[in-house]
Amino acid sequence: MNKRHVYLNMKTREEARNIWLSHFAEKVELAHETISSVDAVGRVLAEPAFARISTPNAHLAAMDGIAVLAQDTFGASETNPMDLKVGEQAFYVNTGHQLPPQTNAVIMIEQVQVIDDDTVRIETAAVPWNYVRKVGEDIVATEMLFPTNHLVTPTCLGALLTGGVFEVKVKKQPKVLVIPTGTELVDWRKIYPEELQPGRVLETNSWVIGKLIEQTGGKWIRNTSLDDDFFVIRQAVERGATEDYDMVLVLAGSSAGSEDHTANIVDNLGDVLVHGVTIMPGKPVVLGDVNNVPVVGVPGYPVSAIVVFDEFIRPMLCHMLGQPEPLRKKIMVEPTRKIPSKLGLEEMVRVKLGRVGDRVAATPLPRGAGSITSFTEADGIIRIPNENEGLHPGQPIEAELLRFNRTIDNTLVAVGSHDNTLDLLADALRSRGGYLSLSSSHVGSMGGLLAMKKGMCHIAGSHLLDTETGEYNISYIKTYLAGVPVKLVHLVMREQGLMVAKGNPKNIQSVEDLGRNGVRFINRQAGSGTRVLLDHYLSKLGIKPSSINGYGDDEFTHMAVAAAVQNQVADAGMGIYAAAKALELDFVPVITEQYDLIIPEGIFESEKIAILLETIRSDAFKKRVDALGGYHTERTGEVLI
Amino acid sequence: MNKRHVYLNMKTREEARNIWLSHFAEKVELAHETISSVDAVGRVLAEPAFARISTPNAHLAAMDGIAVLAQDTFGASETNPMDLKVGEQAFYVNTGHQLPPQTNAVIMIEQVQVIDDDTVRIETAAVPWNYVRKVGEDIVATEMLFPTNHLVTPTCLGALLTGGVFEVKVKKQPKVLVIPTGTELVDWRKIYPEELQPGRVLETNSWVIGKLIEQTGGKWIRNTSLDDDFFVIRQAVERGATEDYDMVLVLAGSSAGSEDHTANIVDNLGDVLVHGVTIMPGKPVVLGDVNNVPVVGVPGYPVSAIVVFDEFIRPMLCHMLGQPEPLRKKIMVEPTRKIPSKLGLEEMVRVKLGRVGDRVAATPLPRGAGSITSFTEADGIIRIPNENEGLHPGQPIEAELLRFNRTIDNTLVAVGSHDNTLDLLADALRSRGGYLSLSSSHVGSMGGLLAMKKGMCHIAGSHLLDTETGEYNISYIKTYLAGVPVKLVHLVMREQGLMVAKGNPKNIQSVEDLGRNGVRFINRQAGSGTRVLLDHYLSKLGIKPSSINGYGDDEFTHMAVAAAVQNQVADAGMGIYAAAKALELDFVPVITEQYDLIIPEGIFESEKIAILLETIRSDAFKKRVDALGGYHTERTGEVLI
Repeated sequence: MNKRHVYLNMKTREEARNIWLSHFAEKVELAHETISSVDAVGRVLAEPAFARISTPNAHLAAMDGIAVLAQDTFGASETNPMDLKVGEQAFYVNTGHQLPPQTNAVIMIEQVQVIDDDTVRIETAAVPWNYVRKVGEDIVATEMLFPTNHLVTPTCLGALLTGGVFEVKVKKQPKVLVIPTGTELVDWRKIYPEELQPGRVLETNSWVIGKLIEQTGGKWIRNTSLDDDFFVIRQAVERGATEDYDMVLVLAGSSAGSEDHTANIVDNLGDVLVHGVTIMPGKPVVLGDVNNVPVVGVPGYPVSAIVVFDEFIRPMLCHMLGQPEPLRKKIMVEPTRKIPSKLGLEEMVRVKLGRVGDRVAATPLPRGAGSITSFTEADGIIRIPNENEGLHPGQPIEAELLRFNRTIDNTLVAVGSHDNTLDLLADALRSRGGYLSLSSSHVGSMGGLLAMKKGMCHIAGSHLLDTETGEYNISYIKTYLAGVPVKLVHLVMREQGLMVAKGNPKNIQSVEDLGRNGVRFINRQAGSGTRVLLDHYLSKLGIKPSSINGYGDDEFTHMAVAAAVQNQVADAGMGIYAAAKALELDFVPVITEQYDLIIPEGIFESEKIAILLETIRSDAFKKRVDALGGYHTERTGEVLI
Repeated sequence: MNKRHVYLNMKTREEARNIWLSHFAEKVELAHETISSVDAVGRVLAEPAFARISTPNAHLAAMDGIAVLAQDTFGASETNPMDLKVGEQAFYVNTGHQLPPQTNAVIMIEQVQVIDDDTVRIETAAVPWNYVRKVGEDIVATEMLFPTNHLVTPTCLGALLTGGVFEVKVKKQPKVLVIPTGTELVDWRKIYPEELQPGRVLETNSWVIGKLIEQTGGKWIRNTSLDDDFFVIRQAVERGATEDYDMVLVLAGSSAGSEDHTANIVDNLGDVLVHGVTIMPGKPVVLGDVNNVPVVGVPGYPVSAIVVFDEFIRPMLCHMLGQPEPLRKKIMVEPTRKIPSKLGLEEMVRVKLGRVGDRVAATPLPRGAGSITSFTEADGIIRIPNENEGLHPGQPIEAELLRFNRTIDNTLVAVGSHDNTLDLLADALRSRGGYLSLSSSHVGSMGGLLAMKKGMCHIAGSHLLDTETGEYNISYIKTYLAGVPVKLVHLVMREQGLMVAKGNPKNIQSVEDLGRNGVRFINRQAGSGTRVLLDHYLSKLGIKPSSINGYGDDEFTHMAVAAAVQNQVADAGMGIYAAAKALELDFVPVITEQYDLIIPEGIFESEKIAILLETIRSDAFKKRVDALGGYHTERTGEVLI
């Protein structure tokens, strides 16, 4: 049962796709069913649809008037009026009425002179078929309306019904058995979120994959989540492959470890076609055939699972349905920083995109396959090919778009220090319904200045204190953004303070307490606004950094500091109230600092920035900020320089 | 109640859109509802979603090994091994386990030397947080996952569930009352298609519009179809505007005629904002406000109705949902023929598109607003602006795509004489599932040759008889495609014959009978293969055209000839068996003719043409052709030149 050699023989993405799709090219055939045409919208025709009736279903008058045989009227003119006998040569008709036999034109009633009950006079000859909607003008009975494999749209429904096709034969939706596995998994339907034990994991992949299946036109049945047990999982796979499922997915356990059973199960029940693909995330995928049913071992990390769906599961569903795979639009982008990549692996890097001037800046998101938010926050995906060791900042590269181009055009890109009010701002902008959105990347205040210098962002959030003047941001702008004309808008005053364990067991009441024996501190990295603030404060109080135990240990975000305190690695760390609140720590306010937004002068008068400022200055926004706690909004929205 | 002045004051599309959307900008507000996050896929958030739990929800070991406080291990090296006390300084952990308090790193078990039960030895210092998944690394409790107006996707569902957000507040789906009106309408659910009386019309628009509403994220309730009665329709509109509907649509009756009540009803109950827009199709639209509910008078022609949905109804639904309107991709195309347009109207011309070489040829489809197939067959829409009188052939113009660009790339464009076997061929190609499709425009054999000369098609269907040699197509190719290297592939032999009324009341048995007294003929246009064939046959038999009553009346298609016979305007016409069959006429075979496909040499070796030929030559295709009746396939697929 030990088949690790298969995994060692990894395939490239292209190779794996070809093996997978060509193996099943002739094998997978969906059953058919006859359904109402109305219900067929979104479904795929299993056979061509032929019109049963013509439209119009007779020659119809397109005007109110008299129906005539045009040839009878040839020669009529103003100088040579012609009389026609009603009931023999001329027949009164209204719009939409069927033309009498042996007539082929309508003369508008305005051009008909009624002589008596039996006679009308005309002064123009009729042109054959004038003001007539001919039988079958739109649809001819027996003609093919749509071919096999046609995807029925709402407008197609119109043609079907009009052609008298009230029901159609469609392909059944592919039915997929989704089997979550993993002893650590918890069913979210059975707990309150806060009850989740540390180390236990909510089973979410089946729901994501299931909804993706639905989106592709398939149906899914969720198997109960199974423990990591070879025989239990094998039984479920066997059931899926022998009952009427069109595909079986085993979630997690697709790698080559001791608890990873999928490859062995597929090998045991059928054939492993591919085990391991040189893509990242998504590497440990299993593609197999059990009883002519495609079986996929889907990696357990959420991002890997989505990638495997995109690369292998969706293509197979599309193949079954005779539909082309949806292709993502591609645009050229420039990485905002170096993106290293492993040689021999095709790396799919999720990026945030922002159009700044005539370039699209791509900021890589966390690469870990466990980070679901790296997918939901991503605007695009950059594929770094197997033979490439990575990308340089600014190196043009193609990105596949996960959102509309326009959405990216309508996104304000904020890079810099993070503050929770940016989330509120993003929400306030989206709530307007004007489609303007705000996307922020958190790289610290100095990182924001550098991004602005490189022209990679519209907004840089900054809280850099000039310790000599006591002023915020302005001197830094002068130094680091020399030659880049910018404006500075005040966003909020916020409280920085000491985050301490709940209940404040070490009774830390001020910065002075950090030097106490038995108190361990955790610091922020050099260059962060918070570090600058602390250093300033320490020097003001005459406290030597070396006297603080842990001053040399640093973290890159407020949250990481809070996490260190939560886990008792440190007793205190400097940060904002929101971080303490998130991890349910106590918070000792120390100082109020200024958090501003730097905006390039070149776009300051633009409509987007106008909307941004209007939003910032609104009472609604300020009210929400105040409600967060730890903020002051007296001067919010003021233009400082 | 007579408010025709409103209609006279027509608005441009842009003006109408602005009036419509800005009038309701603040007025329309969808109610909210709380639903399971799983059911929220495809729905729009009514408020931001904040994470309830962090992920990971604790610091987790990412390796099997010992958890330590990294700072305790500083200084350890191969030359300076360090012993740690188990249970105090070192704690055994497995992957996924929570880190014990006061630890911040994991040392892999492979690098740990077990001295005894209480002691382990290490030879490397741990780096803080090495092999640890930190609490909140992916999601931090309290952080905003998605803002208001966010459209939930399957991957968003993953982030929501992971963040402990098991239910969300979403906007209710806009609920639209759709009121079909028209005394001539028949409910297709209540009849067999063949029972439809001439002049009666199947009510299809409500179903098309309803499905379009669903596709846009709305719900629809279909009102019973109403007769053209002011008071009855007014009652329905009033009900819609006072009950809990978010929009009311009145189908048909939106024009300014005596039976067109919508504008007056809206005026009576509320305000007409716009009546009449300078677009074609779609001109007689009514946009109004009744009791703060948007009401649309939708024109009755199916194409107009779809255009009005695209231009006014969908934008309003998107506005309600806080979503951007979907934009169609645009590409540059070249019309294959002149497209005239009325000054002062923005015309939306449906076109078939085909990539031939490096150009995209656009063939206009029937312009009538009654032709639903002009929409379903269209690949794109060309907008001819108000101030433009039309387009010249070859004049580059933007087209909005209704299909994927790729679909257009994968379409073989056939222009020329029509034959029903082309439909079968189109179906056979699509059935392969390889996404190659065939699109044909019917302009007669000579029209096909001209299109090929201009490089506007991949295939030209032709059945042009050289009356001197008795050979088909070749001499025409030499004359009309001189300098254009092409190949000629035989498709089918087909029977041309005389189409006569059912039962053949005039007992027409041969072409000789056409000269008989009391027999009226209907001809095909000059340049058509059928006309050439007839002329040849007449001259062979020594029959003078002038002796045939109706020889001078002509029609442009087989079907139009059949329609003339069906309506007793003529007693006989020349055409193919399929046309007679479609209108249930009798058919007297006269001659068997050759129908071939002309294909440019430059693409003859391409993969697409290879697939085409393989399909033509398949037994399955020939069998289906034979089953049509009137065809012979002995030499089908032979390359003639």
